[in-house]
Amino acid sequence: MSILVVGSIAFDSVETPFGKAEEVLGGSASYFSIAASFFTDIQLVAVVGEDFPQEHLDLFRGRGVDLQGLQRITGLTFRWKGKYSRDLNERQTIGTCLNVFEDFRPKIPEQYRSSQHVFLANIDPDLQLEVLKQVKAPKLTVGDTMNFWIEGKLSGVKEVLKTMDILTINQEEAKQLSNEDNLVRAARKISSLGPKTIIIKRGEYGALMFTEGSIFSTPAFPLETVCDPTGAGDSFAGGFLGYLARAQEWDDKNLRKAVIFGSVMASFCVEDFSLDRLKSLSYPEIEERFREFKELTNF
Amino acid sequence: MSILVVGSIAFDSVETPFGKAEEVLGGSASYFSIAASFFTDIQLVAVVGEDFPQEHLDLFRGRGVDLQGLQRITGLTFRWKGKYSRDLNERQTIGTCLNVFEDFRPKIPEQYRSSQHVFLANIDPDLQLEVLKQVKAPKLTVGDTMNFWIEGKLSGVKEVLKTMDILTINQEEAKQLSNEDNLVRAARKISSLGPKTIIIKRGEYGALMFTEGSIFSTPAFPLETVCDPTGAGDSFAGGFLGYLARAQEWDDKNLRKAVIFGSVMASFCVEDFSLDRLKSLSYPEIEERFREFKELTNF
Repeated sequence: MSILVVGSIAFDSVETPFGKAEEVLGGSASYFSIAASFFTDIQLVAVVGEDFPQEHLDLFRGRGVDLQGLQRITGLTFRWKGKYSRDLNERQTIGTCLNVFEDFRPKIPEQYRSSQHVFLANIDPDLQLEVLKQVKAPKLTVGDTMNFWIEGKLSGVKEVLKTMDILTINQEEAKQLSNEDNLVRAARKISSLGPKTIIIKRGEYGALMFTEGSIFSTPAFPLETVCDPTGAGDSFAGGFLGYLARAQEWDDKNLRKAVIFGSVMASFCVEDFSLDRLKSLSYPEIEERFREFKELTNF
Repeated sequence: MSILVVGSIAFDSVETPFGKAEEVLGGSASYFSIAASFFTDIQLVAVVGEDFPQEHLDLFRGRGVDLQGLQRITGLTFRWKGKYSRDLNERQTIGTCLNVFEDFRPKIPEQYRSSQHVFLANIDPDLQLEVLKQVKAPKLTVGDTMNFWIEGKLSGVKEVLKTMDILTINQEEAKQLSNEDNLVRAARKISSLGPKTIIIKRGEYGALMFTEGSIFSTPAFPLETVCDPTGAGDSFAGGFLGYLARAQEWDDKNLRKAVIFGSVMASFCVEDFSLDRLKSLSYPEIEERFREFKELTNF
């Protein structure tokens, strides 16, 4: 039932119209792990530096995240600094310091190698492939990628896509990867590269899921306060795969529910900086927002 | 059961990535009337010039649109020319010739004055107010506006908002009118100006409806071919108000269904240039797409 996740852990410095956060916990693996931990057990593979504080380790452990695969090495943790536009729809990277992430080679602990569910967060596709070489026979492989790899390592992206059952990808990146402006065509093209299910993330507009037989579309949850969109996509993936790993049946009905649980986790994520809202979250709140999604979309 | 609509009739010249259409039938009242005519009777108040051909009059009459309120006067019909960006999300107005529309003063025929349902398409708010002075006691007034009037005639816009039960407005214009980037706040602010129900149109991302007690959100129908987005918003309004005028009960359930029928009509509208797809449409096709919307969003 557990999920193996490989991705980044970072210190983020973020500025939005609603405030600033300096050197707060971030990174794709952090958001994914904490979001997914509400549904199932997590095995985390990532790297941090000597400066990574006990407090954050306690957060992961407190949510049942297994840290055997977390490398703690000499040097500083990965840092990212960014600023969002007034309407939060655009973000500018002000600085990236890879630090210990620069030479990161994922080493999958023996106990993790029989994982049935793998999430390949948005990292170098070559590293994503290295992960897959070390795991035996996952039943469900879900992955993400980004414009940086599509532009710089397209052959690697294509190689890893062959191994994925489900791809989660931003709308703009789906267009870029497929060279198609129309999302129906884009999804079909990407699907022909490997993943049978394509989930296109559209930020404040929700998500579209393309499976072999159907299309599912959900709006995002309308929030009166969106504080910081950082991590929304990884929180989405955490809720999505977390639900699927727990449900064990991956029919269209459960895939749709998983998209909603993903949207629920993303909606909580953006309510505060860093993982602050996810930290204080309870499962009944997740269930309540799931019901609110029903009310929001039912006709 | 009939709807009185006041708006523009135009000859549009449109260029999209999928082709060009020259001097084809357009205008808010045209799209609204034809879309709504699938649900109920329409009384059309608009103006055309001597160059307006019999063919278009026949189209309206063929769909049961009452043309007593259509003024045909000396001069040329209103013309609009525009070009869409590659992803269809932006459009540039290349030219506007108001022609006979410049001095348009809506005259509501005696038989129309007891209309129970009024749609004030996007025209000068002063003209929208003139219409309302001439009708007796409509039970349901729905209206639209645009950035041009928000920037240039805000006091008029505010005056006419007081009289509206429901406002349909584009996302960007909702932000502009409310001076709020967050749509939940924007809708609440606009609602305090008059209309209890606010529908925010988001193009390819669907629509959000804010009523007193709830929020309803629907994605747009995912189409493989979007030929020309012109008229989508007015077709939406036509399907929306057309359904409500026929249903006669305006509870939350019917308002939600109306939003879907609006989205259905908008989705057909964009499949071809001008009103070409709406011309060839049948009611069973509308019902079929309504069912497809259920499948698209159900979880």
